[in-house]
Amino acid sequence: MARKNHIVRMAESKKLTKGATVCIVVPSLKQFEKLKDARVVLNSFGIENEVCIVAAHWAPKKTLRFITELESKRVEVIIAAADGSAHLPGMIASLTTIPVIGVPLDGTSLQGMDSLLSIVQMPRGVPVATMAINSGHNAGVFACQILSLKYPQLKEKLNQHKEMLENQVESEDLQFSKK
Amino acid sequence: MARKNHIVRMAESKKLTKGATVCIVVPSLKQFEKLKDARVVLNSFGIENEVCIVAAHWAPKKTLRFITELESKRVEVIIAAADGSAHLPGMIASLTTIPVIGVPLDGTSLQGMDSLLSIVQMPRGVPVATMAINSGHNAGVFACQILSLKYPQLKEKLNQHKEMLENQVESEDLQFSKK
Amino acid sequence: MARKNHIVRMAESKKLTKGATVCIVVPSLKQFEKLKDARVVLNSFGIENEVCIVAAHWAPKKTLRFITELESKRVEVIIAAADGSAHLPGMIASLTTIPVIGVPLDGTSLQGMDSLLSIVQMPRGVPVATMAINSGHNAGVFACQILSLKYPQLKEKLNQHKEMLENQVESEDLQFSKK
Amino acid sequence: MARKNHIVRMAESKKLTKGATVCIVVPSLKQFEKLKDARVVLNSFGIENEVCIVAAHWAPKKTLRFITELESKRVEVIIAAADGSAHLPGMIASLTTIPVIGVPLDGTSLQGMDSLLSIVQMPRGVPVATMAINSGHNAGVFACQILSLKYPQLKEKLNQHKEMLENQVESEDLQFSKK
Amino acid sequence: MARKNHIVRMAESKKLTKGATVCIVVPSLKQFEKLKDARVVLNSFGIENEVCIVAAHWAPKKTLRFITELESKRVEVIIAAADGSAHLPGMIASLTTIPVIGVPLDGTSLQGMDSLLSIVQMPRGVPVATMAINSGHNAGVFACQILSLKYPQLKEKLNQHKEMLENQVESEDLQFSKK
Amino acid sequence: MARKNHIVRMAESKKLTKGATVCIVVPSLKQFEKLKDARVVLNSFGIENEVCIVAAHWAPKKTLRFITELESKRVEVIIAAADGSAHLPGMIASLTTIPVIGVPLDGTSLQGMDSLLSIVQMPRGVPVATMAINSGHNAGVFACQILSLKYPQLKEKLNQHKEMLENQVESEDLQFSKK
Amino acid sequence: MARKNHIVRMAESKKLTKGATVCIVVPSLKQFEKLKDARVVLNSFGIENEVCIVAAHWAPKKTLRFITELESKRVEVIIAAADGSAHLPGMIASLTTIPVIGVPLDGTSLQGMDSLLSIVQMPRGVPVATMAINSGHNAGVFACQILSLKYPQLKEKLNQHKEMLENQVESEDLQFSKK
Amino acid sequence: MARKNHIVRMAESKKLTKGATVCIVVPSLKQFEKLKDARVVLNSFGIENEVCIVAAHWAPKKTLRFITELESKRVEVIIAAADGSAHLPGMIASLTTIPVIGVPLDGTSLQGMDSLLSIVQMPRGVPVATMAINSGHNAGVFACQILSLKYPQLKEKLNQHKEMLENQVESEDLQFSKK
Repeated sequence: MARKNHIVRMAESKKLTKGATVCIVVPSLKQFEKLKDARVVLNSFGIENEVCIVAAHWAPKKTLRFITELESKRVEVIIAAADGSAHLPGMIASLTTIPVIGVPLDGTSLQGMDSLLSIVQMPRGVPVATMAINSGHNAGVFACQILSLKYPQLKEKLNQHKEMLENQVESEDLQFSKK
Repeated sequence: MARKNHIVRMAESKKLTKGATVCIVVPSLKQFEKLKDARVVLNSFGIENEVCIVAAHWAPKKTLRFITELESKRVEVIIAAADGSAHLPGMIASLTTIPVIGVPLDGTSLQGMDSLLSIVQMPRGVPVATMAINSGHNAGVFACQILSLKYPQLKEKLNQHKEMLENQVESEDLQFSKK
Repeated sequence: MARKNHIVRMAESKKLTKGATVCIVVPSLKQFEKLKDARVVLNSFGIENEVCIVAAHWAPKKTLRFITELESKRVEVIIAAADGSAHLPGMIASLTTIPVIGVPLDGTSLQGMDSLLSIVQMPRGVPVATMAINSGHNAGVFACQILSLKYPQLKEKLNQHKEMLENQVESEDLQFSKK
Repeated sequence: MARKNHIVRMAESKKLTKGATVCIVVPSLKQFEKLKDARVVLNSFGIENEVCIVAAHWAPKKTLRFITELESKRVEVIIAAADGSAHLPGMIASLTTIPVIGVPLDGTSLQGMDSLLSIVQMPRGVPVATMAINSGHNAGVFACQILSLKYPQLKEKLNQHKEMLENQVESEDLQFSKK
Repeated sequence: MARKNHIVRMAESKKLTKGATVCIVVPSLKQFEKLKDARVVLNSFGIENEVCIVAAHWAPKKTLRFITELESKRVEVIIAAADGSAHLPGMIASLTTIPVIGVPLDGTSLQGMDSLLSIVQMPRGVPVATMAINSGHNAGVFACQILSLKYPQLKEKLNQHKEMLENQVESEDLQFSKK
Repeated sequence: MARKNHIVRMAESKKLTKGATVCIVVPSLKQFEKLKDARVVLNSFGIENEVCIVAAHWAPKKTLRFITELESKRVEVIIAAADGSAHLPGMIASLTTIPVIGVPLDGTSLQGMDSLLSIVQMPRGVPVATMAINSGHNAGVFACQILSLKYPQLKEKLNQHKEMLENQVESEDLQFSKK
Repeated sequence: MARKNHIVRMAESKKLTKGATVCIVVPSLKQFEKLKDARVVLNSFGIENEVCIVAAHWAPKKTLRFITELESKRVEVIIAAADGSAHLPGMIASLTTIPVIGVPLDGTSLQGMDSLLSIVQMPRGVPVATMAINSGHNAGVFACQILSLKYPQLKEKLNQHKEMLENQVESEDLQFSKK
Repeated sequence: MARKNHIVRMAESKKLTKGATVCIVVPSLKQFEKLKDARVVLNSFGIENEVCIVAAHWAPKKTLRFITELESKRVEVIIAAADGSAHLPGMIASLTTIPVIGVPLDGTSLQGMDSLLSIVQMPRGVPVATMAINSGHNAGVFACQILSLKYPQLKEKLNQHKEMLENQVESEDLQFSKK
């Protein structure tokens, strides 16, 4: 339980970046539930972010408008998630050179194997950086890692985060040996 | 061998439909090699068709222009193929209500399982009619079946085609029993 | 929730087609539960339809009689679903040239992977237009798309449907930004 | 090499059964190539057999006629093989109570996983006895095992066959230790 | 529900065969729960049967004794089930020429894919007739089909069973149309 | 139920080995829940053991320190478990020549297939002895088998364990036949 | 063919970044053959890079030294590839906060499915940005996208690259219509 | 190439163990070809070994005799390989408490996935230590690791082997940087 919360404890951080630095994109509110860890992580690192409900197949015109606006909005990293045939991350990647992080969601009877293959097997020239199935958390962390190239303060936060992970394991180990 | 050619024997048919009734879409010339049976079938049934090299990820703007023109070109059925993450059929289906037939191609080390899942697992509301892996032939036949609702002469051609399949099996069976 | 119901809101439509234009075929009442969205969609588009309990393996003679009657009944599109080895759609497709839409159902411990492969991997010459696992909804929409070639009023309904999908996403997006 | 031939050495056996006791069914001559071991085995055991080219999807009417004639022909066991969606064994099993042995063939890019699942996952009430992918040989042996209930001489042949397998391993083991 | 019970309705049948004609083998009482349909079917057809708890890996010596006794007990068909690596059916098949029907059980996190491959992919010369995952029912029916070669009264029972399946579908279809 | 407990009945055994002969390693307390059978088995065989919470990815430095100390601690066998990408067993194996037993855990939507492949497919030169998914029990037994080479008293315990398994099956079989 | 070369045509670019901005890591020279497209891409974009043969399992100590030096070497992005259990990318990611791009290689009989799952299914907190199987090319492009946040000249290069992809498709389409 | 041969260079070692310490078991000479690396490794470490052609399904009686003799022969570790349903390692493990190392071979169209699942998914109480598909090499190394508990000289050899792996990577890295 403690592990889940360590990120939250960082959450009061004042913003280190300005504008919607990271844009989190999902096809529906229901799917956002599986991805919201991404936002928790970004907030805890002090990274400005914005969530957009954009659906490649349900709302392709909105999706196109949305992608066009990304550049003018100064978005620097995109996190996009989808289940099933899961074309959203790839569709965005085809229309922008902003880095796209893709999160396969486990929403059909094939348990995420369909969305994983659909997101990761992108053709030559149009990469999507694929995370573990349902891992909004890692999408948030990887966005921070990308941004840390430009915003060096994030580097320090990432190191603290790594330390916390290490401490967490240490403390569970102690907890066990006391039993 | 004979089986492969029976379709070709019908190929002199004069055109029963006018304009680019069926549009065959593939991301590259190389991938068209795996799909060309679709065209052979359409020609043999006397159905006007057109091949377009359109790549969802490599040329998204061209793809969008292409889709917009489909309606004005009076295209009635679309056959779209792709390998890997294979978003092309789904991307087209999201932007038009013309029926889209999708053909997963076997072009990566996962042997078409990736393109199959990516094409068939479309979300609620945006269907792609998925064929067997690499089966351009069946995409051609299914396009004919759809068109036969409007062009009743095709119904007869389809019945002849079914008969040919049946005769082919009959003749192989005879050939075997003579051995 | 709203998304699920938008189709229902169209459901009072007066019939645009006459006779059992679309025939929905399933092996049992239990399996119909997974497919009934197909009927909801067809009704909402004003398309006459009929449900038949027909089981390729349990009732092959009935299945054969059923297929023979399809043509005389003026059925124009068939939607067939099954789980496990799922031969029903293919068996129908082998005996008629009416377009067959196949829906793999998730009814065994293999979660629909068995029925998906069994329905989609049809041999050269006998296509089944395969939908996503359990997607009766998409089978209904694709049937409409096929019929819209002959019944142009359906084209307009399909465009409205696409617009509703787009609006639905727009409204979820607004709902989110207000939070 | 020796192992492959031990069955052939039994092949002069005079027939122990009369009439087409076993019927071997395949959709095409090409596919028979993968199944012909079944015939080699049956001949070596002295079991009358007949090969029929029958294709569930290409020639459904012929298939139905064929199945109807099976009973009058006094066929006692059926061996049926197919690749891809591979409905032939199941279709036969739905129309007769003669035991059906199914052999999945490796003929598509999915390497027999499609035909295996399609043949083995038959619904309640209509079994197909499924063999290993491409194992015509085992289909032949299992047919003999079934027939041995009625034709006790086959029991002895099967015991000899088991002994030969054992000797073969013994001789390879000796061959190795001499190296 | 009715479908599940039709077999039970036949269950009072007086025995048509004598001795433990069919032997049902499972590694544990818990696994027998998933296989007990096999017994229900055999009883309904009037076929003498016996259940043995025999575990290839837990009790190999008992398994060997058990197999040796099978011939003297005049067992004519064996039904063997297992989950996970599922070697029981194959181990029995290696030591007897009595036909072995194998039933893969869904008992691990891999949902029966492990037991299916382990049972069906037997080497050349030692077949196991594999049924659908968890389908004790079909194992029972297939045992009857094998025995019907020697016990012609079973042929009639099997035909009644097929008719019942057909009637069942007919009655569900009627039930639906009345709605 | 009885089967589950037979190991526990041996659990009072006085220790046959000294020092932390076996070290059980898991990335978190939560994952230890799935592995604790390993400890139950080791205790029942009288083998000294120690549990360490060590996470390859969360606490790589602790993991490295931990591995360095293993040799000085005279650990003779390591049991390591993980889910998902599951690198822990392989990472340990790369840094020590003490035998490593790996247990894939079923913790993601892919049900242990991911951790199984990640643990078992180790490169040439660096083996991990992989157990069934979630089988802490077998990891414990295999550790005993390895140790029995050096501690001959364990051989006897292992033989008793095998006998208990055999008796357990025998008793379930008797229990069934009395029904 | 032209498509393959468009990247090469950019290859004379003078370096836009200094020092080993990107480090490409593979376990062996043989595996580098499958990854060398990554280097071609980086060179064509004018990005300094360095290749290191580092093997998580064969040379863990070297791997640790290597990772420690990365920060002092001012590496900004890491591309790591491996086949089979493929722990290299994850091991690096556990020890640094520099973004790691992982490329699963197809080097075992499981055709890259093992390395894909092993690389992508990383635990919470330690992401690896996974590319398509064997896609060194996309790893190169994604590295450029990350670096373009800090080096704005790369943005322009990426836009030219996108244009070239689009032109390539356009020219293949023209080539086809002239046939 | 150098990597493959480093083991061979150790091959003159005088024997450190006496009697057939390790027994390598395969079902046929053909399959031994895929496993012979196991022997190369054992010889290079100076471990006495013996190869036996033993086939669980083809020669179950020989297999049983063979297992009975193992104890009297003072075999200390068993390496067993098989393809397809691959029961040999598990069958041996059920009849002895000597540690069994299982090697899945890639011999059917399913490319080793069948043998992997069949060997690794052993039931509670009867472990088989599973190696990567086709990895006779690792089976040899793991056998050495087990034996090193009793024969401390092997510990030193294993450390040398680890060093050689490390040097090999170092030398490939140097080779690359000189290019």
